[in-house]
Amino acid sequence: MTPDTAEYTERLRRVREAMAQRAFGALVVCDPANLFYLTGYNAWSFYTPQCLLVPAEGELHLFARAQDANGATFTCNLPADQIHGYPEELVHRPDVHPFDWIAAESRELVPAGELVGVEGDAHFFSPRGYLALDNGLPENRLVDSAELVNWVRLIKSPYEVEQLRTAGTIAERAMRTALDGLRPGRRQCDVVAEILAAQASGTPEHGGDYPALWPLLPTGDAAGTPHLTWTDRPFRNGEATTIELAGAFGRYHAPLARTVMLGDPPQRLTETAKIVAEAMHATLEAIRPGVTGSAVHEAFDRVIRSHGLRKDSRIGYSIGIGYPPDWGERTVSLRHGETTELAAGMAFHIILGIWMDDWGYELSEPVVVTATGVERLTDLPHELTIWR
Amino acid sequence: MTPDTAEYTERLRRVREAMAQRAFGALVVCDPANLFYLTGYNAWSFYTPQCLLVPAEGELHLFARAQDANGATFTCNLPADQIHGYPEELVHRPDVHPFDWIAAESRELVPAGELVGVEGDAHFFSPRGYLALDNGLPENRLVDSAELVNWVRLIKSPYEVEQLRTAGTIAERAMRTALDGLRPGRRQCDVVAEILAAQASGTPEHGGDYPALWPLLPTGDAAGTPHLTWTDRPFRNGEATTIELAGAFGRYHAPLARTVMLGDPPQRLTETAKIVAEAMHATLEAIRPGVTGSAVHEAFDRVIRSHGLRKDSRIGYSIGIGYPPDWGERTVSLRHGETTELAAGMAFHIILGIWMDDWGYELSEPVVVTATGVERLTDLPHELTIWR
Repeated sequence: MTPDTAEYTERLRRVREAMAQRAFGALVVCDPANLFYLTGYNAWSFYTPQCLLVPAEGELHLFARAQDANGATFTCNLPADQIHGYPEELVHRPDVHPFDWIAAESRELVPAGELVGVEGDAHFFSPRGYLALDNGLPENRLVDSAELVNWVRLIKSPYEVEQLRTAGTIAERAMRTALDGLRPGRRQCDVVAEILAAQASGTPEHGGDYPALWPLLPTGDAAGTPHLTWTDRPFRNGEATTIELAGAFGRYHAPLARTVMLGDPPQRLTETAKIVAEAMHATLEAIRPGVTGSAVHEAFDRVIRSHGLRKDSRIGYSIGIGYPPDWGERTVSLRHGETTELAAGMAFHIILGIWMDDWGYELSEPVVVTATGVERLTDLPHELTIWR
Repeated sequence: MTPDTAEYTERLRRVREAMAQRAFGALVVCDPANLFYLTGYNAWSFYTPQCLLVPAEGELHLFARAQDANGATFTCNLPADQIHGYPEELVHRPDVHPFDWIAAESRELVPAGELVGVEGDAHFFSPRGYLALDNGLPENRLVDSAELVNWVRLIKSPYEVEQLRTAGTIAERAMRTALDGLRPGRRQCDVVAEILAAQASGTPEHGGDYPALWPLLPTGDAAGTPHLTWTDRPFRNGEATTIELAGAFGRYHAPLARTVMLGDPPQRLTETAKIVAEAMHATLEAIRPGVTGSAVHEAFDRVIRSHGLRKDSRIGYSIGIGYPPDWGERTVSLRHGETTELAAGMAFHIILGIWMDDWGYELSEPVVVTATGVERLTDLPHELTIWR
């Protein structure tokens, strides 16, 4: 299922509205999630330079490696004559860069003198590409767009919320697989094998897409470190493991985190789990249209501070479309000082990770803001799973 | 298993030798594969800015988000006082960038007036990060390092070749799983589930690591497009599917591609498969120390030209350590004009992909160059798999 034409039209209208506010004559979109949002283009081609040129008016143009441009119409809603493949010999060359070619082709598409917005912090837009584009468009000034398209993505359409719900169902299944499979003596990689299979198989109606991150599951001493991937060592009795994974459907992500204890949990873990569950309850209660991200954080912080705990990092971030290496939208973060007011259709990953030096606890919930409050995308208990 | 101290020392010595040739006072390493190569640092933390500062002499310094810096010593061989965590509030902020902080911290570590090499085309080094670093080091000039560390990685140590062999074993198992599982009526995502499980479980002795790419398997009409991922549609009789995947072990990658036909293959596919097998044979025969990448390509090209076929894209590229989104090293490509001479210890993914408008054929082989020729890392027949 893909969005209908009206939805793409509306997305582009909102992007151009934001462009007009910044007086951009054109925007160069490199973030694969933004490319997908605006055109449906979806392929593992972002390891070589590619971009969508969005002029203030007129036709959009997609630039990609020739090999990928050939088949781009399988996913991209642009007609073939708006898709341009740069020659294969430009791939990974020391002397020239694909953005030299893209800039040359773009010169006649971008009026001289106009500001050109670029995605300064997009993951697959490199300094070399930026400098080549800047050099190749001498009649234009490049300006950092400051995540312009990402901010347009912040409020989800009903179609998008439906995708997120399916992603949530897949996330829940994958997490149940993880919680059921994690046992002393089993190799981490073998439990991950089951998680990955659950993520891909999805449900009988909806197959899973690849998530932007592989499952993360630091264990034992390392559970105090959030972003470690697995090894082939066995899980051991007496150790806790934090699991973070996502269900993905049609590039939409519902991330989810839980913690498993093999054997009797130390008191600090049981207590932390209880406090974090209480803090999650308070956080979810605080979410509704009109409150700021900072106010949601305060609801969380009040609970954990009252128990003498502390967390420096944000407790959540906006989610939606994701590509490696991140399923976050890089816009709203739920933390002190976040002045953005929540609105119906925003989606967040509320992740309450407490990471100490040599242990950690994680509990998370992917949610959508509704007209009156919050909708959970998964339905698993907010507790520490214990296998004795 | 990790390399011993002597191996890390030798890697750093070779990097500094290359730095001296370019008169770099320091090198800022952002590519996660290069970070892993020089320090063993390995975490899914590259979605926020991070880098390794390699001065021409003296201690190395790792900069990462506070949350990740805390546990970096789990994988990184640097002592804790050479690992610096930037404050959590710098993550995904519109007004400041982590590289502002990194540059400020680096000022006293990099002598004024010295050239500073940067990885201009590294996947997770953004224009905004580059500009912040440039702005924050006003006494230094930033120069594109042109994949300096990647080129040092080109020749593998015996330890690295051993990792690649294990990765090859895992790749072969995963591909057998794919070839066995692909049947009419089965959903693509369910076959992928089995492939992913095989990639993670690896062998009884060695668990698989996560590959830099998820399995790619364009099918039917889309098989003319190399980089499409799966859907939840069923495989159908009468359609061919190209499969590209990797075995990964300790971040080393052995990529592998094959093609499966469900039902009677069209003559063009059978003929192409035969030609490509002959071309693969000629390519492997041509590989030995001292020949150029261009000469290897010529051996391939002679065969397919004699049969009236044509391929514009390169037929292989250097492999080794990989992180998303690419398992290639971005150095030597096997194509016309490649003047680099092969040497023992280089490793390549020979990928003979023929992509037509609405069909395609892929056959690949991961190999290591030996003192006298070539060692294959996998052992599967070079033929089209047909399920009638």
